[in-house]
Amino acid sequence: MAWQAGILETARRTKEISLKAPNFTGVQKSAFLLNLAENIEKKREIIKKANLLDIKKAKTKNFSDAFIDRLALTDKRIDKMAEAVRIVEKLPDPVGKIIWKTERPNGLRIERVRTPIGVIGIIYESRPDVTVEAGILCIKAGNCIILRGGKEAVNSNKILVKILKESLMDASLPEEMINLISTGGRKSVRYLLSLSGYLDLVIPRGGESLIEAVVKYSRVPVIKHYKGICHTYVDKDADIEMALKVSANAKIQRPSTCNAMETLLVHKDIAGSFLPVMAEIFRKEKVEIRGCEKTRKIIPQVKEATEKDWETEYLDLVIAIKIVDSAEEAIRHINRYGTLHSESIISNNREIASKFLKEVDAAAVFHNASTRFTDGGEFGLGAEIGISTDKIHARGPMGLEELTTYKYLVHGHGQIRQ
Amino acid sequence: MAWQAGILETARRTKEISLKAPNFTGVQKSAFLLNLAENIEKKREIIKKANLLDIKKAKTKNFSDAFIDRLALTDKRIDKMAEAVRIVEKLPDPVGKIIWKTERPNGLRIERVRTPIGVIGIIYESRPDVTVEAGILCIKAGNCIILRGGKEAVNSNKILVKILKESLMDASLPEEMINLISTGGRKSVRYLLSLSGYLDLVIPRGGESLIEAVVKYSRVPVIKHYKGICHTYVDKDADIEMALKVSANAKIQRPSTCNAMETLLVHKDIAGSFLPVMAEIFRKEKVEIRGCEKTRKIIPQVKEATEKDWETEYLDLVIAIKIVDSAEEAIRHINRYGTLHSESIISNNREIASKFLKEVDAAAVFHNASTRFTDGGEFGLGAEIGISTDKIHARGPMGLEELTTYKYLVHGHGQIRQ
Repeated sequence: MAWQAGILETARRTKEISLKAPNFTGVQKSAFLLNLAENIEKKREIIKKANLLDIKKAKTKNFSDAFIDRLALTDKRIDKMAEAVRIVEKLPDPVGKIIWKTERPNGLRIERVRTPIGVIGIIYESRPDVTVEAGILCIKAGNCIILRGGKEAVNSNKILVKILKESLMDASLPEEMINLISTGGRKSVRYLLSLSGYLDLVIPRGGESLIEAVVKYSRVPVIKHYKGICHTYVDKDADIEMALKVSANAKIQRPSTCNAMETLLVHKDIAGSFLPVMAEIFRKEKVEIRGCEKTRKIIPQVKEATEKDWETEYLDLVIAIKIVDSAEEAIRHINRYGTLHSESIISNNREIASKFLKEVDAAAVFHNASTRFTDGGEFGLGAEIGISTDKIHARGPMGLEELTTYKYLVHGHGQIRQ
Repeated sequence: MAWQAGILETARRTKEISLKAPNFTGVQKSAFLLNLAENIEKKREIIKKANLLDIKKAKTKNFSDAFIDRLALTDKRIDKMAEAVRIVEKLPDPVGKIIWKTERPNGLRIERVRTPIGVIGIIYESRPDVTVEAGILCIKAGNCIILRGGKEAVNSNKILVKILKESLMDASLPEEMINLISTGGRKSVRYLLSLSGYLDLVIPRGGESLIEAVVKYSRVPVIKHYKGICHTYVDKDADIEMALKVSANAKIQRPSTCNAMETLLVHKDIAGSFLPVMAEIFRKEKVEIRGCEKTRKIIPQVKEATEKDWETEYLDLVIAIKIVDSAEEAIRHINRYGTLHSESIISNNREIASKFLKEVDAAAVFHNASTRFTDGGEFGLGAEIGISTDKIHARGPMGLEELTTYKYLVHGHGQIRQ
């Protein structure tokens, strides 16, 4: 039970610090971020050494190459880390901003002001870059943070959190703003999720089973960053050149991301002219094609797509293609199999496009553009902690503002309610 | 298992309808509300008859007078119900409003647009007025709704939902936008909370045990409308007249509400002059006083306040009083025992007031005004479904805008990501 007492004590102290955090100034937070960027660069060799321990251990356990790749902190990744810290430093501080105000007939002046959320728990897999990303965004928004990363990254996470803590202290901020939980094994996640009096929000980042477990056990509000089964619908009134270019980009440019396309829906009237050229492009780029029955009549050499394909996030060079009778059918398919992430229509018909934008239920709906644009940077938010697939609090890319809440400040001169 | 199949089918159909709801116009929603106001007035006798069945049954079961009172639909309450419907009809439609937009260097035009949340579940106790209130606000914001009210109000709820459905159909809106679950007993709540694929949000309204059970079992995001342990802090630099008037209002004007004061915190330097007069006012109004040790030295005839008093929502003419050494101690007490609802400081010292507003963690923090003002109408939001004590999505009074979410609409001309 020692680990439970340890986690409880960490959560209690973090909550206490978080209540002081609305006082921490933008200047202090900037100093922390500048210290951090410098420290990451200066301590590059120590970081790489700790990371190597994790990688060596993971290699003895037969993890996949993709897993080892996500775990690895190369010089290039460390440079990018420091660069990300400097970008976040330059973003405006969201805390204290008045987002709405009014004066009531009785003279009460009411302001709605952005404030930190409080203590945020991040549950994630063995990706040490998330440790820094989540840390800097949460702290810049005035939050305190409890990290629970995958155990295969424990040495990397420990050194990174040590550097984060040192950078906080050098900016006269309490090191308890950031904490790493590395005891208690899997049970510690469940225990952390029970601490609703101390944590204000949990953000899980990782695969399906991780997110489902967090939703199942959490007594703390959760914002899900779930998978992206993203569609592109090529309408009968599409510009074929544009449809080819955008679909290729959505599938091929970076297939391992959540905003990459997984299913291509094509209107039956345009399928005959569009699909053979599209298939040629996909084949050249080594994309495996799986098609519905009608698709296979037009491009016969492809595998059959089954029900399971419509609900699979490949994250790979695989595409499922389905021919639909109408935009309505495309919308129905997306609302059934989509994951509220990113969806696109290619069409020159404004009426149909407008219907699609209105009726498709997703965080981001595109007209004549690639789903790959769903991203905090691309949307002009500066940075993101991830892409919410929830409908509560924040949808799509979550930047600094989405990591805050608000409170009402009411200024009176003795008003009482009648 | 028949009731489970029934609830599942209701949830499935409601989700399907909700996907069409962004198309429902403000004109249709207004027609529905005007129909409803008229129908409530026209069917007054039928409503009262159904309600009488519930009341008669409740009386045989020894429920408290307060319980029977909340259950009863008198002529006055029915008038108020119709009036509330007309007020909501006049509020602007939040759906479709562009809340942010930008044009990116690559020419993408990005709009953040208010949309309905989808399907909202309301879990509440035997208060039939909530059936209508929740129904009209959710539908005006374009949502569909599944109601699970207390079983003692089942006849009242059934007739009210019938009238709501008729009013929808008369406005050419699908009656499935609103649904009442009245089968399956307590288990039905737990079953409903498991349907995360169909429900987008759950709002529990009721006592502590109801809310705790919902948080424990829900796989659907929850926004809590929890209890209000609200404090007033009378600072050493308070205007004593103002402090007396505001404290009396916060405790006495309507003690059964969540924004009424439960604990009065008084700075030690002002306690000697303030408390005897305050106690006189409370006694005249039959308020039972419980005080800390120091309080009882100044007003000796009062009961002792124990730890339990600091964490009790009396909802009654009872007040707990504690003398504190400083504003810091007041802030610490509030952040420990408060429920993130409404808190007030009475002080002419701007610096201390500003510290209090910043450091007290609550949905609404007042300076020189009564906590009783935390209310959608008083804040100028027009109406409210309740007062959120969560920090995610919405804080404080939840009006129409807080019953929506947003999505990003992205307009391009063939842009691809580089």
